[in-house]
Amino acid sequence: MRRINGSTDLDETDFLAAEEPLEIQVEGKSIAVVMRTPGEDRELAAGFLVTEGLIHGPGDLLDIRYRPHCQLSPNFVPPGPGPASADILEGNVVGVRLKNPASIDLKKLTRHVFTSSSCGICSKSSIAAVRQQFPPVDDDCEVDSPVLFALPQLLAAAQQTFQQTGGLHACALFDLAGNLQVLREDVGRHNALDKVVGWSLLAGRLPLREHILLLSGRTSFEMMQKALAAGVPIVAAISAPSTLAAEFARESGQTLVGFLRGARMNIYAGANRVRSPMVQRGGRFTVNC
Amino acid sequence: MRRINGSTDLDETDFLAAEEPLEIQVEGKSIAVVMRTPGEDRELAAGFLVTEGLIHGPGDLLDIRYRPHCQLSPNFVPPGPGPASADILEGNVVGVRLKNPASIDLKKLTRHVFTSSSCGICSKSSIAAVRQQFPPVDDDCEVDSPVLFALPQLLAAAQQTFQQTGGLHACALFDLAGNLQVLREDVGRHNALDKVVGWSLLAGRLPLREHILLLSGRTSFEMMQKALAAGVPIVAAISAPSTLAAEFARESGQTLVGFLRGARMNIYAGANRVRSPMVQRGGRFTVNC
Repeated sequence: MRRINGSTDLDETDFLAAEEPLEIQVEGKSIAVVMRTPGEDRELAAGFLVTEGLIHGPGDLLDIRYRPHCQLSPNFVPPGPGPASADILEGNVVGVRLKNPASIDLKKLTRHVFTSSSCGICSKSSIAAVRQQFPPVDDDCEVDSPVLFALPQLLAAAQQTFQQTGGLHACALFDLAGNLQVLREDVGRHNALDKVVGWSLLAGRLPLREHILLLSGRTSFEMMQKALAAGVPIVAAISAPSTLAAEFARESGQTLVGFLRGARMNIYAGANRVRSPMVQRGGRFTVNC
Repeated sequence: MRRINGSTDLDETDFLAAEEPLEIQVEGKSIAVVMRTPGEDRELAAGFLVTEGLIHGPGDLLDIRYRPHCQLSPNFVPPGPGPASADILEGNVVGVRLKNPASIDLKKLTRHVFTSSSCGICSKSSIAAVRQQFPPVDDDCEVDSPVLFALPQLLAAAQQTFQQTGGLHACALFDLAGNLQVLREDVGRHNALDKVVGWSLLAGRLPLREHILLLSGRTSFEMMQKALAAGVPIVAAISAPSTLAAEFARESGQTLVGFLRGARMNIYAGANRVRSPMVQRGGRFTVNC
């Protein structure tokens, strides 16, 4: 890597966030290839299946393990030159076996509309369909605003990898007292969340009632959908949500917090779950928008 | 939206980045649903087809236009309650017609491995396959480092929407003198890049020799793949690339710049295209890593 910095121009070594493809197989059948940061791949596979609505608890799983990439002949030559082609042959396929394979409906996969429908928006990809797939959150827990304000610093303290590469999204799970349960990072924000959900599944902790999910970046519709699949009542993010994320949260009974920075936050849905004991609600205050 | 800020707690109005599904149809067949910020949808569809390797120039297109969502009866009731279900019925489907429909190979779609292969990493999703699909960049253009250093400020000045919502990714195309050609924003970084590529296609400007693509965020493998599909020799980003993005850039003959901030940048591939006339290459300098 060549670094130009003001008046210097030097060759140096840098640390980058790793990104490699992971193929997820269910009962030997490939259902997805995701570009992810290697690590916690079993969690990622498990979480992916939960957030796609394919499995619901640890009892649905028989096992998850790395599989050989494919049947390679001893003289196999990767189809392109360079180290990348060879490197991706190992450790990048996980196979999931189910307790009851007949119970799984692979047609439920929402991301792969290529095959399934003449009108994707009417079918699996529509908001309505997603909402029908996962029930609204029914969890009247509450959290104090000081607990939320403290989360970004707790996340930053735990994010050692982030400080090295600057290239990772983070997703962390907290209880209502602000105790960190698990933190996962990935080049893909969806993967970071799937890894947290997969960890929760494998730990027997789904659905995630009375928990807070903290996202290091922005909140999209798909992130809220994944949080709903895991039953999380409160999602907080350092940056902004999209319109559809906010709308989905309102319709799904989720609490959605954005721009959680310092002693500030915006609550776009489910504001009733946030107590702000130190301030008076409403009133005549000056606000900087 | 409820905003808590220090000692205030008020209900306010906020502007969020819009996110809605767009279904892309080719010859009446649904090939993808992407979550995007509405606007420049024809560009998005055209760019998506270019970066997926399905079309290569404006001559491949007959037309691109919005289509009715589906055959609705006069008494159609959206499948779920709430405004979202109704809102997404209009303006969220674009149909592409091709000059020569028989020439297109929908199996080339890289994202939809669900149907196609027993081993996704061997097939369309592999780096090698992608590299075989798009030839390496053959463009020995050069750019002066001060031109690159100026780009983030030019981008920020043009990003009026960003300053309002804080929720959008941006992608901008510049010539080698640093003149802005086009800027597109989207909740999805892939979409922002696809819109720029689609704009270029519709303007008859592909391949994008002697151009610089500036990304507001991080650079993944898939972003470099899309840039390669459009023939862009130089990709610069405000934040970090992933390992695979850097590796792909090196193998594809692309120049990849990261952490382009102030008078600093890191060049991860194709450093020969960057001239730094004001500094001495190498030498004994102190560097802060």
